[in-house]
Amino acid sequence: MNKKKIFNDPVYGFVTIPTELLFDLIEHSYFQRLRRIQQLGLTMFVYPGALHTRFHHALGAMHLMSLALRTLKDKGVAITAREGEAAQAAILLHDIGHGPLSHALERSIFHGVDHEQISLHLMRKLNAEFDGALDLAIEIFQGTYHRPFFHQLVSSQLDMDRLDYLNRDSFYTGVQEGRPGADRLIKMLTVVDEKLVLEEKAVYSIENFLVSRRLMYWQVYLHKTVTSAEQMIIRIMQRAQELTRAGHKVPASPALHFFLAKAVTQVDFETDDAILRRFTRLDDTDVWSAVKLWADHPDKVLNYLSQSILDRHLFKISLQTEPFDADFQIGIVELIAERFGLTHTDAAQLMIAGRISNNAYDADGQDTIDVLTKRGRVVNVAEASDLPNIKALGQRVEKHYICYPKEIL
Amino acid sequence: MNKKKIFNDPVYGFVTIPTELLFDLIEHSYFQRLRRIQQLGLTMFVYPGALHTRFHHALGAMHLMSLALRTLKDKGVAITAREGEAAQAAILLHDIGHGPLSHALERSIFHGVDHEQISLHLMRKLNAEFDGALDLAIEIFQGTYHRPFFHQLVSSQLDMDRLDYLNRDSFYTGVQEGRPGADRLIKMLTVVDEKLVLEEKAVYSIENFLVSRRLMYWQVYLHKTVTSAEQMIIRIMQRAQELTRAGHKVPASPALHFFLAKAVTQVDFETDDAILRRFTRLDDTDVWSAVKLWADHPDKVLNYLSQSILDRHLFKISLQTEPFDADFQIGIVELIAERFGLTHTDAAQLMIAGRISNNAYDADGQDTIDVLTKRGRVVNVAEASDLPNIKALGQRVEKHYICYPKEIL
Amino acid sequence: MNKKKIFNDPVYGFVTIPTELLFDLIEHSYFQRLRRIQQLGLTMFVYPGALHTRFHHALGAMHLMSLALRTLKDKGVAITAREGEAAQAAILLHDIGHGPLSHALERSIFHGVDHEQISLHLMRKLNAEFDGALDLAIEIFQGTYHRPFFHQLVSSQLDMDRLDYLNRDSFYTGVQEGRPGADRLIKMLTVVDEKLVLEEKAVYSIENFLVSRRLMYWQVYLHKTVTSAEQMIIRIMQRAQELTRAGHKVPASPALHFFLAKAVTQVDFETDDAILRRFTRLDDTDVWSAVKLWADHPDKVLNYLSQSILDRHLFKISLQTEPFDADFQIGIVELIAERFGLTHTDAAQLMIAGRISNNAYDADGQDTIDVLTKRGRVVNVAEASDLPNIKALGQRVEKHYICYPKEIL
Amino acid sequence: MNKKKIFNDPVYGFVTIPTELLFDLIEHSYFQRLRRIQQLGLTMFVYPGALHTRFHHALGAMHLMSLALRTLKDKGVAITAREGEAAQAAILLHDIGHGPLSHALERSIFHGVDHEQISLHLMRKLNAEFDGALDLAIEIFQGTYHRPFFHQLVSSQLDMDRLDYLNRDSFYTGVQEGRPGADRLIKMLTVVDEKLVLEEKAVYSIENFLVSRRLMYWQVYLHKTVTSAEQMIIRIMQRAQELTRAGHKVPASPALHFFLAKAVTQVDFETDDAILRRFTRLDDTDVWSAVKLWADHPDKVLNYLSQSILDRHLFKISLQTEPFDADFQIGIVELIAERFGLTHTDAAQLMIAGRISNNAYDADGQDTIDVLTKRGRVVNVAEASDLPNIKALGQRVEKHYICYPKEIL
Repeated sequence: MNKKKIFNDPVYGFVTIPTELLFDLIEHSYFQRLRRIQQLGLTMFVYPGALHTRFHHALGAMHLMSLALRTLKDKGVAITAREGEAAQAAILLHDIGHGPLSHALERSIFHGVDHEQISLHLMRKLNAEFDGALDLAIEIFQGTYHRPFFHQLVSSQLDMDRLDYLNRDSFYTGVQEGRPGADRLIKMLTVVDEKLVLEEKAVYSIENFLVSRRLMYWQVYLHKTVTSAEQMIIRIMQRAQELTRAGHKVPASPALHFFLAKAVTQVDFETDDAILRRFTRLDDTDVWSAVKLWADHPDKVLNYLSQSILDRHLFKISLQTEPFDADFQIGIVELIAERFGLTHTDAAQLMIAGRISNNAYDADGQDTIDVLTKRGRVVNVAEASDLPNIKALGQRVEKHYICYPKEIL
Repeated sequence: MNKKKIFNDPVYGFVTIPTELLFDLIEHSYFQRLRRIQQLGLTMFVYPGALHTRFHHALGAMHLMSLALRTLKDKGVAITAREGEAAQAAILLHDIGHGPLSHALERSIFHGVDHEQISLHLMRKLNAEFDGALDLAIEIFQGTYHRPFFHQLVSSQLDMDRLDYLNRDSFYTGVQEGRPGADRLIKMLTVVDEKLVLEEKAVYSIENFLVSRRLMYWQVYLHKTVTSAEQMIIRIMQRAQELTRAGHKVPASPALHFFLAKAVTQVDFETDDAILRRFTRLDDTDVWSAVKLWADHPDKVLNYLSQSILDRHLFKISLQTEPFDADFQIGIVELIAERFGLTHTDAAQLMIAGRISNNAYDADGQDTIDVLTKRGRVVNVAEASDLPNIKALGQRVEKHYICYPKEIL
Repeated sequence: MNKKKIFNDPVYGFVTIPTELLFDLIEHSYFQRLRRIQQLGLTMFVYPGALHTRFHHALGAMHLMSLALRTLKDKGVAITAREGEAAQAAILLHDIGHGPLSHALERSIFHGVDHEQISLHLMRKLNAEFDGALDLAIEIFQGTYHRPFFHQLVSSQLDMDRLDYLNRDSFYTGVQEGRPGADRLIKMLTVVDEKLVLEEKAVYSIENFLVSRRLMYWQVYLHKTVTSAEQMIIRIMQRAQELTRAGHKVPASPALHFFLAKAVTQVDFETDDAILRRFTRLDDTDVWSAVKLWADHPDKVLNYLSQSILDRHLFKISLQTEPFDADFQIGIVELIAERFGLTHTDAAQLMIAGRISNNAYDADGQDTIDVLTKRGRVVNVAEASDLPNIKALGQRVEKHYICYPKEIL
Repeated sequence: MNKKKIFNDPVYGFVTIPTELLFDLIEHSYFQRLRRIQQLGLTMFVYPGALHTRFHHALGAMHLMSLALRTLKDKGVAITAREGEAAQAAILLHDIGHGPLSHALERSIFHGVDHEQISLHLMRKLNAEFDGALDLAIEIFQGTYHRPFFHQLVSSQLDMDRLDYLNRDSFYTGVQEGRPGADRLIKMLTVVDEKLVLEEKAVYSIENFLVSRRLMYWQVYLHKTVTSAEQMIIRIMQRAQELTRAGHKVPASPALHFFLAKAVTQVDFETDDAILRRFTRLDDTDVWSAVKLWADHPDKVLNYLSQSILDRHLFKISLQTEPFDADFQIGIVELIAERFGLTHTDAAQLMIAGRISNNAYDADGQDTIDVLTKRGRVVNVAEASDLPNIKALGQRVEKHYICYPKEIL
């Protein structure tokens, strides 16, 4: 069979799957599961076009990796066919450990379990199935391969993951200002001492990338309505978990029920294959079908939250730079208790306070974006001349939010 | 509250919701349900970006309607604010009666129930809720309003529904040749004797629209792999229905179970509110979560089909212009019976033969696309000069297919 | 020096110049001249964005050639580096013999001189300069190379020239329906018996390409206002030529003056290097600067036409399927004579009658578009099943026009 | 005649000319002249697609103005039809006083003459022709109208001029990161105390706009190769001027010759109609046709520079943050003198040193970009919270360059 398949990507046009191994990985049920996990979870409530999946993102990141590798080879960087395939496999599988709704459940039923660790664990399982064909991909993913630029292409402050998700998320949300300028950035990539750097003339493109990324954070990922919806689904899952563990009947698919009923740890995942098997059957479908069932659940908190999110009847959300006053929060809870006829404890479940924050560039850590000056020096882009404001991009911006039912207004 | 909301549409940019009534309709749970029904059902197995929903399509069609109305008004066609809002409400709600997976279930569990009739029925329910605010929208939808061009904008061979779905489907699949050229076509619209016509200079754009539409049919909607996947899901639902009605336990959400267990007719829908209530809780989520459960069902046919579609392990499909020979079909069934250890009757469930067909333009019916010649005559575009091949577009193309498990090859 | 240059093309993104020879050809003054020749001549009067040049088109066609060659190589067609470079050089230079305003002057001062012959002649001159490096490119251009598919990629009914100009012209005019779907068509190319064919599944894309091309003809290239402007500039050049040859003083650049004063033949070009030298200094600049001077010329016909075209005060144009009646034409001339105070002979210069025609596909000639059926046969696309209307696309559509000053209305 | 014309803009799609006055202004020969003045002058040597004209830009800015006015009206700002038309006329004509090559000649033959003053002067002439129909447009253009937001829409740090040119220049160069996000910015406009402000949630869009604009400056407008070409054309015009004024024969069109021979001042323009008449006949055509003639001029400096720019044989250019050392400059001149056999004085003409600089946002002047906070305060965006780096955008970046013939390397 011809495995050199081509598929249509509205973002990049025709995309080719370059090798048989990559084709077989895509065909695997672990990877096909990503078709059922949306990249942006609840964002669709604000941006109705943003329904794209982890599956599509992974394919796109693989495509950008192939462009990056071609650029590097054209510039004389020696890259073997095996290294190239491994780098593409690593990026293809980098998100394979994501649970339903991408991030939301990490803060509820998968508390304490890191999706990157699960990705790694699943890659090892696949490696066993494919007789070690993923050895090098795993090294690259972990950052233990002796040529660090491969890992940086997979995971760094300017990796193919970010370039694809910014490209794709801005495309599907329609927020065109969020486009990162991936084409130009990739053309500017090069390697010095086995590390990834960009040609100096890329500085404006890097700044534009960082600013676009920040815009995407505040306009999309941390959009106030999106934040409200995400907090609601987190609260739904937490409530379902509490009720289940307290012995109440909470209908759910077998896979979801398992994780509602039992707290699992990272170690559990890695030692108990039954857990992994359940995990690999879990996707957005389980969450939404459960929420639909829970809209009829006798528990008032669970049914109110479930019905509300189905009808996009979202919590009112307010943002401010200071934390919300404790008295103010108590007042809100009292209003909820009264309006909904709930106990204080239950009413508190319908008020959510928290914090969102983002910095556009982490200039001080290990993983900086480096440029190669015309004189041959490698410097952190924040130190490169001409751009007084890249440093400023390093400052963290933080906001406090509070959400609660509109009915109390 | 400000109900003049704006949302981002990757296809059209910023789109405004023009009136409070339209805003309230969009907020209604009947309409929010469309968020959970994909426009193109199984097409995502071939075009991974094609995940857009009926919700988004309905908003887009409403937007094109507003552009069409503005063009007509600029050309001196008198249109009242009430008529304009009604036309937009009619197109907004035209698909509200769609069931899960858009069309596939019409050929299984909703056999004999017409989605347009359900749309009409739901519009009447909404009309009651909104105290008659939809009276005129319903007239327009049904084609009983005395100014037929409004109905033609909602439903005809060149309506805002088609222009939006071709625009949207070509955008999200990445099949750019499928773009219908909606902007230009809309600018060419005018009204003669209360009927919709296009200026004569639009003939090339009309031809291009018809050819693009045909391309979308064969490249997307009737793509062989999409056809294979659709036939599989139809077979899955039929099998689940048979098993349920035969008394076997077939897990499903309450809403889906209801329709698996009981054949409903158009009349049932219109007389029994409980049926409608169930229907309005049914969406793609119910189907996919059931399929996931059925992958473990004891029935071999059901579990094989369910697991296969989840893993995108699709039937091999062949197409030809002649029907497939009966002996050939029997041979296939025998191979399946042997390979899977099934009875003949069960094996026959894993072989599907059928027919797909399409004509680009129905030139002979009542509902033609008409142009206004420079001399003031209104003629069917197929009769307009200069385009020897529009007539040829009227010919129906038909293909026969057969699908079966790849394992028997 | 690094000659692996990259440039930005709004149509294709980043485009790489693949070899040093190609880079050096682009740098040559013969090729740089194409920067001063607009691809679409007078079309800018209707589509103000359509200012792109032969220079840009040639680079774009070279880019599509590189994509086509890569596709063929991926499908196992053996193509040497030398063949690949030659094919790219051939397409890069295919338009190098174009005179100012692309086509208009071919019907006036270059009457009887074929631009393709001049391209060939210039390629031979360049070949001498580059020590025979263009030997193979010239064979491919002429169609004498023993592997005809290379010539077909340069010049046939589905060549890289057409794909680029349709892409580019639709982009810069904003007529999006004119996009030919080049990406998909190129992916479908293959070679059978050294001839270019397309995979059978390309039939819908081919039809779409032919229909888009026809749309571009009638909407852009033969647009009535464009036709009017082109006829005016042709008449201007003819008048200037007559006056010059009759001994009147008609200011012009030395290069333009030469061709106004003296009729040259194909043979002259090929035997007299001085003529070629003059030709290679001629571009749109010469025409427009002369027209500006001629707006003050004492000859009434010349100054009226020149001032009019500068101010976009264009002739009224009418189109019909029948030729315009001789009496009607005489009547127009009389009105012009009266209105402008001209003799009949001069007035006749301000009335232009003619004919435009186009057929979307020449199905009967030698150069057909062929597809490879699944059964391995190569057939003319017009014979391929499923598309009743491709044959109809072969019919020629013809229109008669008449243009004259608006002042007589 | 129907003057409600529509034209195709590749950047915005279909654009409507809203009133008869605007249509008549566009038809005027003063405005048609802008068809022959490229927006970006020499930029085409780096970005071959960047051939768009002042004509197209002015139409685009008028279109954005109509979008901005519609947004403001939708938000309840009272705008009369007369004000709306005047604002559109003002932006349509804002560049009508531009000379050939947009900016380059301002630094040579139009030294000391301000193009905005000429625009104003031409607007007054048009106003006389149109019987005072431009009274209000002129007030708005000058900033004397009592509702300052109209002037701010025409000319400020976030005006429709900038939004269009950034949109258009990024489109035609292919530098997609330069897109300013005009749609969203316009939707965020509002008016407080008759001044233009943006809603607070626009802060990320404003930052993105400023960063995109800076990127366009360094990547396009001040691109080193563009700078080199611009300096060459300036030097060409200066040399031609010197030679002409020294009595040498320097062929040129009558209009260009006039300005080469005679220094004109602002006052001359405003008092001598003959000067204005000559100016309104001057465009890019005059410059390029003269440069073509000058390639054969006996003056070595003039012919070398002219032939070089025609063949895109551009000066080598170096940039640095410090000024270039005087001794280094003298050394360069000596090398030129030797290599070209020129006197020192003449050789110095082939060496150009200078300075380019840009700041992304002028935060301290009168004309700030202001946002309206949720609490109803109007503040400079640089003072708005959340964006530590907008202040940094105010810093001016400056670079020194030196250019000279590649032959001396």
